[in-house]
Amino acid sequence: MSSEFDLIQTYFNWHYPEKPPASFGLIKGIGDDGAVLQIPSKQQLIVTTDTLISGVHFPEQTPPHAIGHKSLAVNLSDLAAMGADPAWFTLALTLPHQDKQWLSDFSAGLKALADKAGIQLIGGDTTKGSLSISITAMGLAESKDLMMRSSAKDKDVIYVTHTLGGAAAGLAMLQQRFEGEDDHSCIEQLNYPVSRNDESQLIRRYANACLDISDGFLADLNHILQSSKVGAVIDLDTIPLPKALQDIDQQKALEYALTGGDDYELLFTVAQENQHVFEQDVQQEKGLGCIAVGVIDSAIKGIVSIQKEVLTPKGYNHFR
Amino acid sequence: MSSEFDLIQTYFNWHYPEKPPASFGLIKGIGDDGAVLQIPSKQQLIVTTDTLISGVHFPEQTPPHAIGHKSLAVNLSDLAAMGADPAWFTLALTLPHQDKQWLSDFSAGLKALADKAGIQLIGGDTTKGSLSISITAMGLAESKDLMMRSSAKDKDVIYVTHTLGGAAAGLAMLQQRFEGEDDHSCIEQLNYPVSRNDESQLIRRYANACLDISDGFLADLNHILQSSKVGAVIDLDTIPLPKALQDIDQQKALEYALTGGDDYELLFTVAQENQHVFEQDVQQEKGLGCIAVGVIDSAIKGIVSIQKEVLTPKGYNHFR
Repeated sequence: MSSEFDLIQTYFNWHYPEKPPASFGLIKGIGDDGAVLQIPSKQQLIVTTDTLISGVHFPEQTPPHAIGHKSLAVNLSDLAAMGADPAWFTLALTLPHQDKQWLSDFSAGLKALADKAGIQLIGGDTTKGSLSISITAMGLAESKDLMMRSSAKDKDVIYVTHTLGGAAAGLAMLQQRFEGEDDHSCIEQLNYPVSRNDESQLIRRYANACLDISDGFLADLNHILQSSKVGAVIDLDTIPLPKALQDIDQQKALEYALTGGDDYELLFTVAQENQHVFEQDVQQEKGLGCIAVGVIDSAIKGIVSIQKEVLTPKGYNHFR
Repeated sequence: MSSEFDLIQTYFNWHYPEKPPASFGLIKGIGDDGAVLQIPSKQQLIVTTDTLISGVHFPEQTPPHAIGHKSLAVNLSDLAAMGADPAWFTLALTLPHQDKQWLSDFSAGLKALADKAGIQLIGGDTTKGSLSISITAMGLAESKDLMMRSSAKDKDVIYVTHTLGGAAAGLAMLQQRFEGEDDHSCIEQLNYPVSRNDESQLIRRYANACLDISDGFLADLNHILQSSKVGAVIDLDTIPLPKALQDIDQQKALEYALTGGDDYELLFTVAQENQHVFEQDVQQEKGLGCIAVGVIDSAIKGIVSIQKEVLTPKGYNHFR
């Protein structure tokens, strides 16, 4: 079998016909003890790390191409949530054994998304063990564009991008416990989540607070509320559902949408006085779906619905 | 059990009585989707990632305090080898179950070294699975101080720091297959490797090429030789051995020192004309051991000894 060194050279030292997307500040990439980066002086560096474990963050039978995609997508999503543009990433890949086909498919899925997102692989480590992928992604942002969890203000309108619950429904379909018709687009959402980096470019011009929904809408909204020391009122009738969830019992559908997790949609707040112009801008950009689902209310604690229910955050928790 | 969020808050959101060491460019640390860094404009950012797997990179019975130390030390060592000063790191920790004592000891070992090295934890991820620790460390360097593997020149003197083979001997002792007297300092070297960040500050002023010895002296020297397209002549009599290896059969001792790996000493080359002034500088700094062990020779391929043996690089290879 080839050595760790050859493995990186063979599968991850990607060649580009032209200059790769994020080559601007890259002085030295793969091949030394560390990568060397030159950060543009007016920008800040955003750093995020996410690990995916087989059987925890994706079903064990997930195709390696999808694992490659998803490992990077969850990190790109964090950059989008911060208001940063993707630049570089490192990969720590742990594999039970060297499987050429697996590595080739994983690498292809990773590279396809990396190229699309304009992010470049600059280094990493391959080790032997249970399958796990840990990526540290780096992005660039001007400080005025940064969106923190702690910046939600009283009366801000709460938005989410696109629809919620699709990935959780997809998992239920794979596990043959979904209550409605199977819909391949939900499985696609689970395996190939779309990070909202394009949406982030517009949202960062308006949003006060932002994060990405990985644990579930309620759990993640609660992170914003706790950091910002505010509460929220949600209109459950406005929660955007994918088609597969529109056709099942609506209580069940809301459970997928509110607590499902793995959606990687952005959840953010915009000051009320900017609501109109923000929504106009959203309409002008085709494909940028942003739906208002509630308002920040500093007079209450936690999350209530306008239907007067108290909503408890119960997202996905690896250690529960 | 506490959630992933609480786990980070409890064990890794360290509190400092005074400003932590690497707070200078840290705008936002743990607690959001990403950390925010301001890189000083005249410096470059060096990024390195290393993963440690239980049973592969450390024996399963290794104390968690030592695992915390070693996980960071191997990354600090890469920064030293590049000529960079430690600044920040992220931690991706995968654990089979939440064990308070384990987490507390691991965190203490990690923090003790982080404080000593002046590097600050800025984010990360905790997940459930087989024990593995992946750290991405970031350092700062001026471009003139960077040391690449590819910069060794004909007639450069080859140096190593301190002694070689101690960690491999320590592992043999733990596995009760060591040929001589057990020596606790070798086990200490295995469990608590010392990254050579202090030495790096002096070495970077003189060295052409540099890396750290993780796979073994010969395997790592070979990385320099291949990158620099040169060969090397080594004087085996000058290879510095720890005390435990001075007392056993010298052929066996050399095997530990040349192929053992896990030493995290620096291996570097200095132009012949700078040898004298470099060695004078080394002598003035107490505790900075640097030993000349050979010379770069562009007329040969690979590594030979002045004793006329051809030395094949056969370091540790996770996939062999």
